[in-house]
Amino acid sequence: MERNGDFGSGRALAGPAPPLPRRVVDVSGHAVGRDFVLIAGPCAVESPEQTLLTARRVKAAGAHMLRGGAFKPRTSPSAFQGLGARALEILRAARDDTGLAIVTEVMDPRQIGEIGEVADVFQVGSRNMQNFPLLRELGRTDRPVLLKRGMNATLDEWLGAADYVLAGGNDRVILCERGIRTFETCTRNTLDLSIVPAARTRTPLPVIVDPSHGTGRDDLILPMSLAAVAAGADGLLIEVHPDPPRAWSDAQQQLTPDAFDALAAAVRALVAHLGGTCP
Amino acid sequence: MERNGDFGSGRALAGPAPPLPRRVVDVSGHAVGRDFVLIAGPCAVESPEQTLLTARRVKAAGAHMLRGGAFKPRTSPSAFQGLGARALEILRAARDDTGLAIVTEVMDPRQIGEIGEVADVFQVGSRNMQNFPLLRELGRTDRPVLLKRGMNATLDEWLGAADYVLAGGNDRVILCERGIRTFETCTRNTLDLSIVPAARTRTPLPVIVDPSHGTGRDDLILPMSLAAVAAGADGLLIEVHPDPPRAWSDAQQQLTPDAFDALAAAVRALVAHLGGTCP
Amino acid sequence: MERNGDFGSGRALAGPAPPLPRRVVDVSGHAVGRDFVLIAGPCAVESPEQTLLTARRVKAAGAHMLRGGAFKPRTSPSAFQGLGARALEILRAARDDTGLAIVTEVMDPRQIGEIGEVADVFQVGSRNMQNFPLLRELGRTDRPVLLKRGMNATLDEWLGAADYVLAGGNDRVILCERGIRTFETCTRNTLDLSIVPAARTRTPLPVIVDPSHGTGRDDLILPMSLAAVAAGADGLLIEVHPDPPRAWSDAQQQLTPDAFDALAAAVRALVAHLGGTCP
Amino acid sequence: MERNGDFGSGRALAGPAPPLPRRVVDVSGHAVGRDFVLIAGPCAVESPEQTLLTARRVKAAGAHMLRGGAFKPRTSPSAFQGLGARALEILRAARDDTGLAIVTEVMDPRQIGEIGEVADVFQVGSRNMQNFPLLRELGRTDRPVLLKRGMNATLDEWLGAADYVLAGGNDRVILCERGIRTFETCTRNTLDLSIVPAARTRTPLPVIVDPSHGTGRDDLILPMSLAAVAAGADGLLIEVHPDPPRAWSDAQQQLTPDAFDALAAAVRALVAHLGGTCP
Repeated sequence: MERNGDFGSGRALAGPAPPLPRRVVDVSGHAVGRDFVLIAGPCAVESPEQTLLTARRVKAAGAHMLRGGAFKPRTSPSAFQGLGARALEILRAARDDTGLAIVTEVMDPRQIGEIGEVADVFQVGSRNMQNFPLLRELGRTDRPVLLKRGMNATLDEWLGAADYVLAGGNDRVILCERGIRTFETCTRNTLDLSIVPAARTRTPLPVIVDPSHGTGRDDLILPMSLAAVAAGADGLLIEVHPDPPRAWSDAQQQLTPDAFDALAAAVRALVAHLGGTCP
Repeated sequence: MERNGDFGSGRALAGPAPPLPRRVVDVSGHAVGRDFVLIAGPCAVESPEQTLLTARRVKAAGAHMLRGGAFKPRTSPSAFQGLGARALEILRAARDDTGLAIVTEVMDPRQIGEIGEVADVFQVGSRNMQNFPLLRELGRTDRPVLLKRGMNATLDEWLGAADYVLAGGNDRVILCERGIRTFETCTRNTLDLSIVPAARTRTPLPVIVDPSHGTGRDDLILPMSLAAVAAGADGLLIEVHPDPPRAWSDAQQQLTPDAFDALAAAVRALVAHLGGTCP
Repeated sequence: MERNGDFGSGRALAGPAPPLPRRVVDVSGHAVGRDFVLIAGPCAVESPEQTLLTARRVKAAGAHMLRGGAFKPRTSPSAFQGLGARALEILRAARDDTGLAIVTEVMDPRQIGEIGEVADVFQVGSRNMQNFPLLRELGRTDRPVLLKRGMNATLDEWLGAADYVLAGGNDRVILCERGIRTFETCTRNTLDLSIVPAARTRTPLPVIVDPSHGTGRDDLILPMSLAAVAAGADGLLIEVHPDPPRAWSDAQQQLTPDAFDALAAAVRALVAHLGGTCP
Repeated sequence: MERNGDFGSGRALAGPAPPLPRRVVDVSGHAVGRDFVLIAGPCAVESPEQTLLTARRVKAAGAHMLRGGAFKPRTSPSAFQGLGARALEILRAARDDTGLAIVTEVMDPRQIGEIGEVADVFQVGSRNMQNFPLLRELGRTDRPVLLKRGMNATLDEWLGAADYVLAGGNDRVILCERGIRTFETCTRNTLDLSIVPAARTRTPLPVIVDPSHGTGRDDLILPMSLAAVAAGADGLLIEVHPDPPRAWSDAQQQLTPDAFDALAAAVRALVAHLGGTCP
């Protein structure tokens, strides 16, 4: 192939892909990297009712963790920025009620303490994948970090970002593919599932997939979730909202609780077919 | 989503994705679009032995069609261009021996007659996806056309290219996703599996996937083949060579016959798990 | 710099960029590669009046060649495909009237003879950059070939395509940058002017720029034309139409004759300032 | 034109491009947006000698500001991260010696105070273009902000990021195009000069260009600098190092002081030719 002199170099580094040892990241008793994990919840925390209702439904469907944005990175400062501290209280209440572990995004190293009082997993969004001061600070915490791939990050850059967390002494990093930016406009991003097996040849860290942001289309989430499982993903991150059309953000890509029930069932059956476990 | 005003427009056109009627394309008795299809064979026809050995092995593994390049589109005129007419004779002999239908590429409208004497399916490569005179000419034939997506083609452009064949009166078009060109260099291309369910909302045509060109890495072909099945693909196009490291082209992305045996078995089991058929 | 192991490889091949000898391509007495060349005209030939009026205006403004599409590559078969043979007659009449050399696109190797009776330069569009049978056939003609860069073609691939023409014995190839496809949607394509000086380190062939397709916006054509000159381009290809809003294609990116007058004057002054010649 | 339904939407928003009022940003007496500005200096501050020698040379060549990295964002934590506080002292000394205004990057909102004691302009790098907490904090300072475009940022996203600074009450924002990430690998990035005139139709803010990062190749910096001027840029950001091959970072894209002398002279002549001023 004449295009990339270094194409496949990652693999060259890894040689004929000897299966790397897999790292298991413990999150509130869930063995991410060994057992398949389902993380679900609304794009943004909007109200106690919306969040609690969603938490109970995804818990009933078999989800292990609840995602929900308290502080939202938005392209425009005039867009909804999240409920902030109030959202954290709502997430805490949802955890107390359902027992679900909480995954929420942190953008500012100065907020790690505040968010850390509620978050069981710190999410680093794609816009902050190379926010090195934030990554360094998270490396000094005792909390797992869910590191989303940047919209234009190569595998080398993604692993380099993870190294900033690992270098601080925190070895509990979970990688999350969420789609890359390409010329195609019929989807919000292009979900790069090949990065899952490609990453396996380079790192022992677990790799999960976010088909909600990866496609931006609720009608593509189920098939791409199954595809992610088949590609070898260690888990899924799915946006679920009680009333997607009325969602304050990402209305096009959130599933209804009923749709998530069907997705969770199909995913669990596929994980079992492929010989995996999903407690 | 601030980025694309028209993002998801395809879906808008299709409304809330009412499952479109599916077109079944008959290829030598195989109902592509209804039954899952396995197409396998070498990147290029190199010799009668290499081709026949490969054909017998993929047939034994359950493949329905044999792929093999007679005329190769290469970036440089000094690179191997294919055995041409001699390759067509070799493919004909392989079909006579195994009964496999033959899929081979046509680049020049003037070669349709010659290639048509052997090809059961005309393959149009990604470089020629918008070679409109070629597409028009193929629209006047009675032979199925396997239309690969261009490396930088949007869904709209891909469907527009298919329309050139359909407009000529030939409704036997099979779409094939083979990876798009992005910034990522750890794979040869970025396999866009989300285009499979996205295309479903826009066209009744079957959609198959080529993970060999889509990844360019033999170690990623199995997981991405399973992912393609889970995403809803109607079939797979896989490069197989008796001795990949010695292949005259695409050495990095061809499977050994043994590896294809394992892939075919895993694919058939997954198709069955998902409720599909693969005779 | 961590991204591309082979980034800049082209330059590595060329060493510390010793200025390559420059090839001068003669087109009806114009020394392309030595004198700056202005090629202008409508996207498509629509009528004798539209074409002749445009030809006279761009000639008066100092253009050396007339561009005009007779056979148009369109995404959909239902879109206007060009006036074909009738357009060729119109172009011939425009040349007889103005003395401008004719540049028009060829997509089909079978049309080279017919188009060659009128075309002084065969244009190969971006969709056909790797239409190798077409390039080979053009390599056997005695006519200059204007080879547009593919929307997703690397420099290596573009030069490889040129080699198909050169290998046939026709050394009169003019390269034309016309924008590449990226994620950015505020322009139709992303005009890659850095490819002009980059190509200089790899090939002696002249390189011109098409800011009309490169930007898709009439309001960006003047500044990007000046930028192309400053980057070292050997010429410009500009779309001009007597009444752009009523154009049958590319309405957004064609200049009025008055706007072209202003552009030509600014370009000639800049060429002179930079020490170049534009007879 | 079939590709992007929203292509050119920015322009649609701005209507037929009525020349927007231009904002002039004062930086230590330099009227950025009115007078052409030259910013030059090493990628990273390596030593007092290297920095002072470079500062004196670029000052003598007519540069108005000195760039130099104290805190470097690097893909890997094991790569050189910059001299930090010591580099700030070196930059302060260079300013005291030459009178050049200092432009240096800030990545962490907690460092704004420390860096602000030396920086006359805060640079926000492409990796941090959407580091919203950092942008908000900078919006509360009294210092100009040089905001680099993200490697995959659309014009809308870039202007949205600027709005975070403006919303805080700091209206002294200078935009800087530094190349976007595409499939092309013969340059480090693809310098998108069309964004300069495109931004003009959307914002009154000054727009400068960084051809060093935009191309990653010292042999392309001069032609692309001239192209940037011709495209209408308000200034240039150029990497200069006394001994590029020995630079601790970006060795391939830094000019020697002699090369910068030639560039500055050619740029000033072109600015004058185009009717601009460069005191």
